[in-house]
Parts: sequence; C-alpha cells; structure tokens
Amino acid sequence: MASIGLSVPPGITISTEACQEYQQIGKKLPEGLWEEIIEGLKIVEKDIGNALGDPSKPLLLSVRSGAAISMPGMMDTVLNLGLNDEVVSGLAAKSGERFAYDSYRRFLDMFGDVVMSIPHSLFEEKLEKMKNAKGVKHDTDLLASDLKELVEEYKGVYLEAKGEKFPSNPIKQLKLAIRAVFDSWDSPRAIKYRSINHIHGLKGTAVNIQCMVFGNMGNTSGSGVLFTRNPSTGENKLYGEFLINAQGEDVVAGIRTPEDIDAMKNCMPEAYKELAKNCEILEQHYKDMMDIEFTVQENRLWMLQCRTGKRTGKCAVKIAVDMVNEGLIDSCTAIKMVEPRHLDQLLHPQFEDPSAYKDKVIGKGLPASPGAAVGQVVFSAEDAEAWHAQGKSVILVRTETSPEDIGGMHAAAGILTGRGGMTSHAAVVARGWGKCCVSGCSEIRVNESEKVFFIGGNVINQGQWISLNGSTGEVILDKQPLSPPALSGDSETFMSWADEIRRIKVMANADTPEDALKARSNGAQGIGLCRTEHMFFASDERIKAVRKMIMAATLEQRKEALDLLLPYQRADFEGIFHAMDGLPVTIRLLDPPLHEFLPEGDLEHIVGELTSYTDMSEDEVYSRIEKLSEVNPMLGFRGCRLGISYPELTEMQVRAIFQAAISMHNQGVTVLPEIMVPLIGTPQACYRYIFTLIELTHQTNLIHGVANEVFAEMGTTLNFKVGTMIEIPRAALVADEIAKEADFFSFGTNDLTQMTFGYSRDDVGKFLPIYLAKGILQNDPFEVLDQKGVGQLIKMATEKGRAARPGLKVGICGEHGGEPSSVAFFADIGLDYVSCSPFRVPIARLAAAQAAV
Amino acid sequence: MASIGLSVPPGITISTEACQEYQQIGKKLPEGLWEEIIEGLKIVEKDIGNALGDPSKPLLLSVRSGAAISMPGMMDTVLNLGLNDEVVSGLAAKSGERFAYDSYRRFLDMFGDVVMSIPHSLFEEKLEKMKNAKGVKHDTDLLASDLKELVEEYKGVYLEAKGEKFPSNPIKQLKLAIRAVFDSWDSPRAIKYRSINHIHGLKGTAVNIQCMVFGNMGNTSGSGVLFTRNPSTGENKLYGEFLINAQGEDVVAGIRTPEDIDAMKNCMPEAYKELAKNCEILEQHYKDMMDIEFTVQENRLWMLQCRTGKRTGKCAVKIAVDMVNEGLIDSCTAIKMVEPRHLDQLLHPQFEDPSAYKDKVIGKGLPASPGAAVGQVVFSAEDAEAWHAQGKSVILVRTETSPEDIGGMHAAAGILTGRGGMTSHAAVVARGWGKCCVSGCSEIRVNESEKVFFIGGNVINQGQWISLNGSTGEVILDKQPLSPPALSGDSETFMSWADEIRRIKVMANADTPEDALKARSNGAQGIGLCRTEHMFFASDERIKAVRKMIMAATLEQRKEALDLLLPYQRADFEGIFHAMDGLPVTIRLLDPPLHEFLPEGDLEHIVGELTSYTDMSEDEVYSRIEKLSEVNPMLGFRGCRLGISYPELTEMQVRAIFQAAISMHNQGVTVLPEIMVPLIGTPQACYRYIFTLIELTHQTNLIHGVANEVFAEMGTTLNFKVGTMIEIPRAALVADEIAKEADFFSFGTNDLTQMTFGYSRDDVGKFLPIYLAKGILQNDPFEVLDQKGVGQLIKMATEKGRAARPGLKVGICGEHGGEPSSVAFFADIGLDYVSCSPFRVPIARLAAAQAAV
Repeated sequence: MASIGLSVPPGITISTEACQEYQQIGKKLPEGLWEEIIEGLKIVEKDIGNALGDPSKPLLLSVRSGAAISMPGMMDTVLNLGLNDEVVSGLAAKSGERFAYDSYRRFLDMFGDVVMSIPHSLFEEKLEKMKNAKGVKHDTDLLASDLKELVEEYKGVYLEAKGEKFPSNPIKQLKLAIRAVFDSWDSPRAIKYRSINHIHGLKGTAVNIQCMVFGNMGNTSGSGVLFTRNPSTGENKLYGEFLINAQGEDVVAGIRTPEDIDAMKNCMPEAYKELAKNCEILEQHYKDMMDIEFTVQENRLWMLQCRTGKRTGKCAVKIAVDMVNEGLIDSCTAIKMVEPRHLDQLLHPQFEDPSAYKDKVIGKGLPASPGAAVGQVVFSAEDAEAWHAQGKSVILVRTETSPEDIGGMHAAAGILTGRGGMTSHAAVVARGWGKCCVSGCSEIRVNESEKVFFIGGNVINQGQWISLNGSTGEVILDKQPLSPPALSGDSETFMSWADEIRRIKVMANADTPEDALKARSNGAQGIGLCRTEHMFFASDERIKAVRKMIMAATLEQRKEALDLLLPYQRADFEGIFHAMDGLPVTIRLLDPPLHEFLPEGDLEHIVGELTSYTDMSEDEVYSRIEKLSEVNPMLGFRGCRLGISYPELTEMQVRAIFQAAISMHNQGVTVLPEIMVPLIGTPQACYRYIFTLIELTHQTNLIHGVANEVFAEMGTTLNFKVGTMIEIPRAALVADEIAKEADFFSFGTNDLTQMTFGYSRDDVGKFLPIYLAKGILQNDPFEVLDQKGVGQLIKMATEKGRAARPGLKVGICGEHGGEPSSVAFFADIGLDYVSCSPFRVPIARLAAAQAAV
Repeated sequence: MASIGLSVPPGITISTEACQEYQQIGKKLPEGLWEEIIEGLKIVEKDIGNALGDPSKPLLLSVRSGAAISMPGMMDTVLNLGLNDEVVSGLAAKSGERFAYDSYRRFLDMFGDVVMSIPHSLFEEKLEKMKNAKGVKHDTDLLASDLKELVEEYKGVYLEAKGEKFPSNPIKQLKLAIRAVFDSWDSPRAIKYRSINHIHGLKGTAVNIQCMVFGNMGNTSGSGVLFTRNPSTGENKLYGEFLINAQGEDVVAGIRTPEDIDAMKNCMPEAYKELAKNCEILEQHYKDMMDIEFTVQENRLWMLQCRTGKRTGKCAVKIAVDMVNEGLIDSCTAIKMVEPRHLDQLLHPQFEDPSAYKDKVIGKGLPASPGAAVGQVVFSAEDAEAWHAQGKSVILVRTETSPEDIGGMHAAAGILTGRGGMTSHAAVVARGWGKCCVSGCSEIRVNESEKVFFIGGNVINQGQWISLNGSTGEVILDKQPLSPPALSGDSETFMSWADEIRRIKVMANADTPEDALKARSNGAQGIGLCRTEHMFFASDERIKAVRKMIMAATLEQRKEALDLLLPYQRADFEGIFHAMDGLPVTIRLLDPPLHEFLPEGDLEHIVGELTSYTDMSEDEVYSRIEKLSEVNPMLGFRGCRLGISYPELTEMQVRAIFQAAISMHNQGVTVLPEIMVPLIGTPQACYRYIFTLIELTHQTNLIHGVANEVFAEMGTTLNFKVGTMIEIPRAALVADEIAKEADFFSFGTNDLTQMTFGYSRDDVGKFLPIYLAKGILQNDPFEVLDQKGVGQLIKMATEKGRAARPGLKVGICGEHGGEPSSVAFFADIGLDYVSCSPFRVPIARLAAAQAAV
C-alpha cells in the first residue's frame, strides 16, 4: 500500500526471491540478506525515531508470512515482537502496566508456540492455574501483578521445553521469527496443500516485518473499520464504525459500542480527512469498494488492512453501474465485479435479516432452490392447491414429490422434502419455477396420512407456519419477515452490458406457454429444452389418456389413446410457439420411463384406479404393471427406446408439433421448431441386416415422414431441425457418427453425469454427503459440472461432432446450464448455447459475459 | 480349382480388373474385353469339341458373379444359358424331350427375371395356368408337350414385358448376362450393403462363365456330395452320398434314397479313384476338411463345388490334431481351424439329436448358459436342494433368481427364468458354473406359490419333466436324451498348442475353493475376480450375520456383526489360497448394494424375519429398510462407496484376507493376494480440505494399515497388490490419475457396458430384443464387447494408465472375458489378462491363441 502513498505502519518485506535463494542453499539465510534486513530496519527506526530494544521508545514488530496466496500450513503472525524485560517497562511507562505485561505474556506464548514449536497447551496450563489461584474467571480479570507473575511462569515453560532461556534480544527474536516463516514453507502441511491443489511455480514465501501501532494510547488514539461505500445499498458514502482509545479487536468484539464513522469528523478532523482521502485513493487503485481497518495512534492515522468489501446483490449491481458512470471502470470490469450469486439475490425473495431467526432453525436440508418462503404447512398436492385457492400461502411438505404433485407444487410458496438430492424431482421443478425448495432434509419424518411431520423434537401439524431458506437449506419455525425480489433500473443497464459482451447464447428450459413467457422476459434467446411429458400431467383428462396409452395391449388401443392426446399436445405447442415468436423452440420427444405416469400409491389403489377408466380386468392391469416395473429405470426403457419400440408415439408427438407450428405460422407467428431425440447411443448400422436403420435415423425418418404428411395436409411447409441429446457416455464416444445424422447436439448433462459417475441422482443422498464431507468430491457434480470427467466427454464429443459436420450447433440443456463455473466451461470449449431454467437465465447471461472478459 | 489340376467344368473368369475398367468407363464394356471372352470361350469350345449355339452338341453355360465375397444385392446365377429353339432340339435328342424343354422354360424364366428384370411372378402365372389347364398339381407332372407350350408362353411374357423378342442368339444372351452381373455391382442393395458393412477397396465383381454338366445322362452319369472326413467324429475317411443318373439337387432333395459314397467304388471305379485323389489334392491345398459336390457325366468326373466343411466340436479338434500329425499343417494353423463354439460343445452336455425334439419345443428364452439339461420342475431353491439330495435331477423355474437362491441353483441341473437378460443373476451364476440356463423367457408365467408355470397353452406342474437347451434358449417338453461332455486326449494336445501360442493370460472368476479348483483344472492362470459377497449366502449363520451388519444402527453394532463374519471369510480365503497355490488371487471388496442381502418376499415377511434375529423393533426395521431402498440400485450406494462410508467393513474383509494369507503361507502355500477396490470414479483430490483422501487412496491406506496390523500380530509379512476396478465411465476418463494409486487395473466390462450404454442389464429385456430385431444393435453388448464405444474407453484408459505408470498390469474380469471376439480385442489392445468363468477358460485360451496367430 505504501506504493500508492498511504500512511501504513513502516516495515520491510523480505522478497520471495531472497526466500527462494534461502530454500536452495538449505536452512542458512543467504549471504547479504541479514544486512538488508538490518538496513531496512534502520530505515524503520529512523522513520519512527527509535531503535529496536530501546525501552525509552518501545518499537514492537509484527512478523508474518507474505506468501503470494494465503495458504494453510504457513506460519501464523507473531505480534508484539521486540518485547523483553527492559522494553516492557518502557511500554508500561507509556501505556500502563497491565497493558504492557498482558502484551508481554501474550508475545511469550505466541512466539513460543508459533516460532519455537512449544505446545500452546503448556502456556494455557499456567494461565488456568493462575486464574484458579486468583479466583477469577476471565483473563481480563487478572491484575497487572498477576500478569507479571505469569510472564515469569511462561519464561519457565520456555526454559523447560527448550533447555535454554527465552531469547530476550529483539534482533535474535526477529531472526528466529524470520527463519520460522521460511521453514513453514517446507512444513508437511504446506507441501501437502500445494501438492493437492496443484500449486506450482511459486518462488517461496516472502516475510513481512511491520511496526506495531496502538489505538489505545489515550483520547488522541482510536481504531475503526469501514467500507468505502454502503455494502447494503451501494450508496457512495463511507460506511463504518470507530472507537476512541481502543484497539481494532475492541471495535469488532462489541464490548464498547462504537460510534458511526461520521463522528470521527468532529473528534479527529485531520485524521478523518486523511482517511477519506485514502479511501478515495484505494478505490481509484483497486477500482472496487474496499473494506478497511485503520488505527489512529496519537493523532496519526495508520492504514492497517484493506481488502475488497463483501456486499449484497443490490449493492454489487449499483456499485458496478456507478463506477462505470463515474468513469472509474469500463463495462467489462463492471461485469467481473458482480457475482452470479448477487444476481440470484435480486431474483428471489430473501429474509430481511437471516441473523434474526437463528434460534428458530429446526433443521437443515439441501439448498435445492434459492430464495425464501413463508407459509402454512400442507402435506398433499390437493391441499396445497385448495388452500392456495383460498388465498393462503402454503409450504408443501412431502417425503418426496412425484410428477403427480406438479399442481400442488406450483401452488405452494415453498417445498420441503425428506428425500432426494439437488436434482431430485422437487429440486429440478422448483428451480425451474424459481420457487424456494429445501430437499433431502433427512432429519424430518413425514406422516402424510396423519398430516404431521417430526423434526428434531418438534411436531409440526398441518396449518402451522414455517419458513424455508432455499439458499441455505434451513427450515425455520414461524413466519419470518421477507423482502421481495428487486430487479431495478441499474440491473437492466448492467444486464445489457453482459449481453453485449458474451458470445455464448442463453436459452431456457420451459414446458408451458407461461414458462416460455417468463423465460423470454428474463432474456432467454429461445427454448433449449421443452419437455413434452410435463404437459401430460396438466389435467385429469390428459393423464388418463396417457395411462390408457401406457396400458394398451395392442397397437390399435395405443393409437386410440394417442389420438386423445394429440389435441392437448398441439394446443400446448401452439401456446409455446406463440410465446417464442421469432425464437427457436427445441422440443424433446417423450423421455421418461412409462411407469412414471402410473398413479401413486400402493398396488391395490393403482390397479383400482386403472381398471376404473380402462377396459381391462384387474389381472390384466396387474400383469401390465408388472411388465412395466424396472430395477433401474434410469437405465431402462425410456428415451428414444420408447419411440423406436412404439413409433406411433413419436408420430403423434411430431404430428402435434407440426400441426401447431403451421397453424401458428398461418397466424403470422415466426415458428422455428427444433425436434430433439433423447437418449441416442448407437448410431452405427449393423452387419447382419441390410435395410435396418440406426436409432437416430429411425426417428429422423419418422419425423420427416410425418412432417411431409402434415405439410401436405395443411398446404404449407416450414423449416425445422432434427437433432439429438447427447446424454449417454457412448453417444459422446461415437459423436462423429451421430453428427452425420443430427442437425444439432444438446448435451443432457444431468443424465450424462449420472452415467459417467454411476450416481443415481435419486439415490446419491446415501453417500454424497459423506463424499463431500470427506472431501472426496469437491462439489455435488449435479450442481457444478465435473469438468475433468463429464466435461472431457462433452469436449471430446463436440470436437468429434464438428469434425464430422463443420459448424454443428452444440448446446447443453442440463441443470448445469445455469451454474456459473459450468457456463464458463461451456463458453470456453466453444458451445453455441446453454439452456437453463427461466429463473436462472439472468445468472447464465452474467456468467457467460464473465467467461468472455 | 483348375489351377490345382482338378477336373472342373471348363469356363472363363472375367477378371475384377476388367470389371473395374467397366465401372470407370460407364456402362460400356471396355475395349478388347469382349474379344477376350470370345477367345476364352473358343478355348472352352475346343476343349469340349463344340461351339456355342450348335444344336448338334449342345453347350450350355452358367453365368454368375465372382465377387471376392458373397454379397447380397449381387446377381443370382443364370443356368442353362445357350438354349434356343435349335439348341433345345439337339439337347432333346441327347437327353430326352422333357428334360430339354424343362431346362429351356426354366432358362427363359431365370434369364428374364435375373438378367432382364421381368418379374418372376409373370412367369409363375403362366405356369399355374398351365397346371390348372392340365389338371396337375406339380411341375413334375407336366409332360414334354406341356413344357413345349409353356416355352412359347414364356416367350410371350418376354415380348410383352420388353417389347422385343427373347434373344435367341447365345452370344447375345451371354453379353446381356455379363452386363447384368456388372450392373448388379451398382444396385442400390449392393451399394447399401457395402456401405453398411464398411467394405471398401474392392475393385468390383468378376464374372464366372462355366459349362453346364449333367449327372442325369443315363447310368454312366451321377451326382454326389461328400465330406473329405467324417464331420461328426473326424475319422479320416470319405463321408458322403451318391446317386446314379441324377442331378445334384436330386441327392439333396431326398426323392430317391442316395447310396453311401463307398458304393461308387464298384459302379464307377475310375471316377471314384479320381474323386478320392481330388479330395486328397483339395485337402492338401486348403489344409482343411472339405465339403464337395461333384457330377459324373458319361463316366467323366466333374468337380462342381468345394468349400470348408461344417463339423462338430469333437470332429474339429480331432481333424486339427490329426492334420498336424499328418504333417499337413502346423499347430498355428490347427489353432485357427477350431472355433470357440466347437470347444463349447465339448465342455457341456448336448442333446443327442436336436432335430428329434422339434415338435416338443414349447417356448424360447435367451441362450443364457450353454449346454443341455433334463430334469423335473421345481419352483423354489429349497425344493431344488431337497429333491437333489434325494438323487433327483431338477430344473429350477423362477420368475427371476436372487442371491438367496444360490444353493438351489447349484443343486439344479438347469435353470429357467421368466425375466432377466444374458447377464441377469441367473445367467451370470449359471455360466460361472457351466450350468445350463435359459433366461428371460418372457412367454412363461410362473406361479411360485401354486408350484405351476404356464407357457403357450401348456401347464407345467412341479415334478413334471422338461428339457432345456441353453445353447439355443429352447424349452422342451419331456426328457430328451443327452450325450455327456467329452474333453478327450486330442483336446488336451490341442489346448497345449493354444497355450504355447497365446500372449494374453487367462484367469478365472471364482468365489469358492471348489470353483477355484475347477478353474485351475481348466487351465486358469490365477483368479482374476473373487467376489467376496457370494460367500455371504453360503449358510444361514452367514447371511444372518450379514443382515445384522446391514441393519446396524450404530458403529458398535456394525462392528459386532462384522466380527461374526470375519471367521467365515477367513476360512473361505484360506480354501481359495490353498487351491490356487502359486497363482495370483484377485479379491474384490464388497460390491453390491446392501439391500441385495435382505430376505426375499413381501415387506411384512422381511420385517418379520429381521425382527426375529436382530434386537430391533418392527418400526426400526421398517425405517431401516426404507432407508436402504433405492430407485436405481445399479447407480447407488455400492462398491467402494460402502467401504468409504463404513471403513470397518473394508477393514474386516482385508483382515480376513491377510489372516488367511499368512496362515496358508505358514503352511507352505505360495500366496499371491491382490486386493481390488470396486467402483472407483473420483481419484482427484479436492481443493477445500487439505487432509482429505481420494476414493482409492482412502481404501488403499486402510488396506495397508490393516495389512501391517495383521503382519505385526502374526509375525510374518508377505507381498500383495492393491488395484482397482475400472467400471465407471469416469474412471476410464481419468485413468491416468487412478494409475498413480493403483498396482493394477481390472475392467469390469459388465458395469462399464451398463453405464456407457445407459442399459440396465435387469431391464434391457424390454427393448433389446426390438433393437436386435430392427438391427439397431448387431449383438447384445453384454455378450459381445462393444468395441467402438466401451472398447474405446478401455483402450483409452489402458493408454492413459500405462502413460502414468509404465508397465501397469491391466486385465478384464467382466462377462466378456470368455467371449472370443472380445478376447481377441483385449489381446489386440495389449491387456495382460482376461478373467472369465471357470467353464469358459478353455474357450478364452483358444480365443487368445487365435488372436495371436
């Protein structure tokens, strides 16, 4: 900081080059280094008009590592270096006996522990003994005389542990401390840390030696902390606290109540003026809002520490926009200043004061979908809808959710589940809607029939108020106050800069016209994933028709049921095409295993329900259900395997798409349909049969055939694309062959992650928490893309695909499309687009821009 | 054949080079080609003393494609070319009117259809009309005069279809036929076939023109088919049939009963002598047993066709060994002459005569484990064991099997299941034992409680006899006669050659001392996969201890249960180490999800059983079971995820291994333990925690720790290896990192195939048959390794692994280790070993040798 002309306590830094030389020649300080340090200290002495070890004007030092980055295993800071029996008396004369001897005994402890490797516990024992002897509870209750005694005790510890006396010569203390910093570079912990984290090429640590300054030297001294702007609102005005005659830790500890930083203007006008000027210099230099610690010692201002200030989302955006307007930074820099989690805050309701509800937290699950929610507990989707219709705010609590619960989930303000990870059904759906969700809260036990759930010692009944924090996973008793989401004018300006800068497109996953509109208003450049199956649950008639289709024993029965579904699908597609006028809509053909569409409940209930609206006997229903059941549905009869086995299913969906497309086209809407075939894995043809077709060709031919039929029937044609999901590892491995048949690739990173890792996202809760706790995994791979494994496949497939078909359009539509580090990876490897839930679109836009700058 | 001096009907081949030129210049025959053909035909004419088109000595030709390989889409053979109104009368004079006109009308049909693209049906219509008019049923009932009429009718068809007369000039006929052969090279079917099958670099087709010869020209003529050795036994003696005054098709058609080839010695001594000599020449030339067709025309022998003869396993081995002994071939050639399926026949019982039971086949499932089995039907493992103990042969019939059924499966002669693919539990276990199994027979409906199963219209009760053909998947009524497996002295000689030649090692998958002995006697060079969990089901006490371990709520309870298991595991390992004295034993730590060890049956029964021997209440048991249940167990809490979450589990298993190893070592056994950690996927360390461990390191450290403890306790040390399964796609992608920690890799190709394809092997039955039928898949990837996808991963991982750790030992232990084409692939990419079930070891040894020659 000295280089930009601030009043920092004087000191010297021993360079990393010197350190490197030290490492190379072993444990001896390199020639000339010590002279350099002494020379530097002389300058320091001169500067403050005193000499190290001179009790008349006591000079104390802090010694710490100056490693390029803060690293575990490196030596902790040693404070108050320079104290000995003489200097302490000088300090006592100046600052009082108690202060002086307390500093002295702390230095002995710290120096012994950190520099000389004497166990801290040996000093602690002496301290405890002393407190017991004096009958006091806290260190602060010890008198100066007690501390004086303790200093002697501590010296005894030193003598016993090391076989020699504590080094009273300050120069010797300094030498030992410097050596300890150097040595800590080679400590097993530090070496292990650098190795694990692949930190190479560093020259070694530097050593910082700095004079101690004190804010507790009477009423002309003081300490404070401040932000250069308001970290809540972003207002451009110093924001902080100040305490007269106090050390920095006193301000933080809260024993005395600090004053607003403004008060300093009056009591220390000169120091305040300099502080304000320094703040301006620091902002100009770092081009950011700074978090500062300072001390005034006898009217003289010293800047102690300066780092980038933590801030709220609102503040982050305002500061970024303000600083561009102030000419301090350009828009590229502004983009880097706002973190995606900042935007997230702006997009969801938040609790007004999370610290206020600390005592009321009754459990913790996974932070499955961010934001905050407050409502009355209900236990069924039906109740959620009914209560919502009465104007009530509800929290839907379930062991786990299923597609049948969609209506109730939509009606609820928040969702809490006992089972399922970050990509469980509840989590995925809730994030898609930007709705607060806490999933996999394994502490709760839900009794859905009795309408009650248990958590810790609490029994929560239907109708009781609870609050959920979807950003932390906390489950909180009672109604906690909320603040609403706010995307202000500044945000709009800011997002327009992000859009100018980014190269990768951002599309949205949306299954309904409402979601499509939401996506568009959040800046989506199209729909990257429209899941046709979600429409199946939208009404009772629809799901009944779906179930008839599933239960069909013959082709005719199946076609009959599909004919019932066609108009529903067509109407949905019309709405979506209308909403996305002029933008591409990527529609995925039916993907989930059919048994997902069966009713919930026990077998008896299911069979009962199905016999009620199919012409089947109980036996027939039972046998069909048994045939549908699967051991590993994730790896079973789903995706294009359905459409290949039942081509009439693909035909119905494609017919609905093209009928909708042409009807909208005839109404003047610009329709850009892209049909996506899921779960392709085997593109290559076979040897045994000549005229057989490959998976994708089979579906592509079907799609083109139906398109031509519909075009002929309706007397219009339009352009469309047929592409494929890449979500099976094998598809990535043979992507060159697939590309020959596909107009585009869309990576389904959820399924690709499941299969690449061999993790079922429904079951991962059993070991993922252990893996995260043990550090075997750094992140939940369903949340943050695993770049090394899954990313390797995506990169390989993209390269193979584009080698076979230059310019191939490639995107992703998994959960990772809205996760910033994953978006950066996708942009880096040259994908054309990411597609995420409508609520994540702004975050993806920002992450994409950050990847580009 | 002419080149080796045999009496083949004279002819000429137009070379593929000439054809290529033809293709290049379009549809015109290249200059000079026609002259060449005429010149060649003149030589043919001279040879038989006649001219094409001369009715006095009629010369008829056959014209066919001489493509390098037989390909669909290429032109069919045209016979009897050269006939016209004059030549036919010459033929009639020589061979009778009926024969001549029948040949003529057949030629008109064949030429019109094949060369001139006149629909065959047009000729058929005329023939039917004629038969109706004459009131006869069969072609053969038509008189010469009828056929004369038909010839005129056929000419009419020609005129009508083509607008011009049938070309009576034989030279013109020949030109058109040659052109048709050339053109068929470019037919869409042929092009498609070559493209699909990646047949590149062929120059085109050649054309073969050959004189017709006739075996039906009186008693000095005849036709026959023969094998140069006995195709059943391999005996070195001509084996075949012969008919005087007959065409080849008469021998095959069975209208007259042919005589044994020996009979020819007497009636045609000269021709027979030449035939026997030719057979010798052909065997000498092709160095194999040949399948031959010949014709004698007026005492002159003509060799018509010669190809490698099909044979039984017994014959294949005998011929190979005999031919080496005869000095005809060397052992490398012998190795290539025996197919793995031949060995398979020798290793399992076979039905004496599969054609005899054709009418009794009542259903068909998957050919899950080869061989034949005959027994009385039982429906539970208990019954199978009880009946077997009474000396009965039983077939165990179940919807599907589970590890609980192991005892009964072992007692059964064969296993039939209604559900599950080629790698279902039943299939895998049965193959491991070399026991006949038909799995996934979806036609059957099993009622296990009523002890009856339904198939087609049949009701099969307990105790009824059925037969299973595990090589074809057939389910057969009643007791069908069997012939036992036979590995004769010839086989031993043969296998010793295979072992000399092959480079890749063959190990076996074996879980018990008995299996280990079986493996060793079949030539296994060690155990590549010992599944520790199979031991858990060996007795009631064991499985109870396992269940106590699973149900344990606390670490103490779990350790207590594990202590009960330790002695069992140790005893098993002792037996296996003893059996494998001097050979490596690769032991896989516990792999399957824990719920696989729960009792079978409905929930009530399970809870009842578990409460009976754990100290848990029904509620506790119920809640624990619920926690254990998984949506996709394949991708769930299994493999090293268990040992990392419950380190005490790994500790117990490793302790048992080392205690057993040292106790055997102390008894003078050479013990080579290799411990294998399953389901590794994330080798990389994390950034957030410093002292955390990666999956493999976590387990490796544990293993070494326990080993050192046991070594210290028992006062001995020994060498061992710790390696890993590569069975998750991600593991293959980051194999370089894993190799740093692993002494060896073993690819688990079953799981790797499941995850690379996204196919659950338990559920694949729903779509795999459709995929195979539609030709989307060429093979079941669980049976034959998918070289393009899964193989790509294996190759990549091997290369990455060996780059990081040169000389890394790499093998595979999935089902593919015993499949010949897969073994060849593994040998090709340089793996060190394959490991397969003990019964497949000889097949793998042969396949490995074939890959090396």
